[in-house]
Amino acid sequence: MSAQSLMQLAGALSTGTVKVVDLTQVLNPETPVIQLPEPFAQSPAFSSELISQFDDDGPAWYWNKFSCGEHCGTHFDAPGHWISGQDYSDGTTDTLDVNQLVGPACVLDFSRESADNNDFVLEPEHIKAWEAEHGEIEAGAWVLMRTDWHKRSGADFLNIDEEGPHSPGPSPAAMQFLIEERNIQGWGVETVGTDAGAAGGFEPPFPAHFMMHGANKFGLASLANLDQLPAKGAIIIAPPLKIENGSGSPLRVLALVPA
Amino acid sequence: MSAQSLMQLAGALSTGTVKVVDLTQVLNPETPVIQLPEPFAQSPAFSSELISQFDDDGPAWYWNKFSCGEHCGTHFDAPGHWISGQDYSDGTTDTLDVNQLVGPACVLDFSRESADNNDFVLEPEHIKAWEAEHGEIEAGAWVLMRTDWHKRSGADFLNIDEEGPHSPGPSPAAMQFLIEERNIQGWGVETVGTDAGAAGGFEPPFPAHFMMHGANKFGLASLANLDQLPAKGAIIIAPPLKIENGSGSPLRVLALVPA
Repeated sequence: MSAQSLMQLAGALSTGTVKVVDLTQVLNPETPVIQLPEPFAQSPAFSSELISQFDDDGPAWYWNKFSCGEHCGTHFDAPGHWISGQDYSDGTTDTLDVNQLVGPACVLDFSRESADNNDFVLEPEHIKAWEAEHGEIEAGAWVLMRTDWHKRSGADFLNIDEEGPHSPGPSPAAMQFLIEERNIQGWGVETVGTDAGAAGGFEPPFPAHFMMHGANKFGLASLANLDQLPAKGAIIIAPPLKIENGSGSPLRVLALVPA
Repeated sequence: MSAQSLMQLAGALSTGTVKVVDLTQVLNPETPVIQLPEPFAQSPAFSSELISQFDDDGPAWYWNKFSCGEHCGTHFDAPGHWISGQDYSDGTTDTLDVNQLVGPACVLDFSRESADNNDFVLEPEHIKAWEAEHGEIEAGAWVLMRTDWHKRSGADFLNIDEEGPHSPGPSPAAMQFLIEERNIQGWGVETVGTDAGAAGGFEPPFPAHFMMHGANKFGLASLANLDQLPAKGAIIIAPPLKIENGSGSPLRVLALVPA
């Protein structure tokens, strides 16, 4: 049965009845990185430097070296990224259970609400209304909050004014519901981090980080193209680099979708 | 049908009848990197530096910045990495077709031959003998050469003496067969690069690079755990970072296998 389901998937990929959607932003020096207030240390932007390009340094080959933060661009947050998840023996990018990196995706579209109110906060009643239309979120799912934020760029993506950043995200009650009532595996967003821009003032602060990682669950930030996914029925693939004791990493996130 | 195959896969992952196998080496400063002869430029080792760890620089969070070469550790070779593939408009990590990053894996076990002869060269007759036992390699497949090289470490992994590196890999005729007769999508190995250690002396030199990338196909090097895959029936997932104009990248390679 398991061998058969993989053969069917291989056939569907070959004939194009299952397509792969790229949920990833491009990595370059302009890729947005979270900006923290003083006095906290900042993560650097992505940078790259040529090693050789069909020249004396390498006549037949082209390659670069690069540097960035573990939480640069489309990136994965491991439980060990947060103080609440630091004690898990399988909470870093090299120790986590790879079986949890592939799973069903539930895409909750709150793009209209987020356009109307850049500080839109997702509450349990929003999730329950989505479930009434699309069915219950299954245990082990990745819940992806669609906001169409990936269509923004530069300063408009970070959306910071004198009061701080303005971007949508979940309330503590929403996170509690998804963890305790639904037992999801991952929480993904299109914004620069998994929490709302104003989430430093929530109780607890940064609930997507504090509560998800405290429950040994994963986060994805700066996702793109969530508008190309069905509400249900896609499978997300989110494999971070296997950095030793890594708190997360930039990654290529893919989704398998019915064509 | 396509939606059904994805639902079946989700169910099989949930019940554990399909498992995820990690084909990735850990990334740390000791991760082996290819050593080129003089006068060619070298790729640096992986390095990492703390940004904060539950301290004044970030009281609730832990994160690092890191740097490495695009071809460090378990890594992806894009067509644009080689002079023969430099003109493809979809030949870099940001432009390639993501539908090609997920596909059936054929695992050719030549671990015994590689132990007996560290310079073992895979020829078309070896591939045909494998096919006689396991069935023909399908178009679009990823062909993975198992050598158990991932069980080595350090100097024993690179295996360099005064004559140069000694490690197994394919002949030009083997590459020609897999490209022209089988139309595979990817070629993966456990050694530090996709070619044999002695392949600089082959005609053409470095056939896995020159011929595969010349045909707009992909490479994977420094894979681990190929001994945990069936000869046929696994699906490999090989998504490189979306580096702008990237020649390749370190990545997390996963395989879906029947439990």
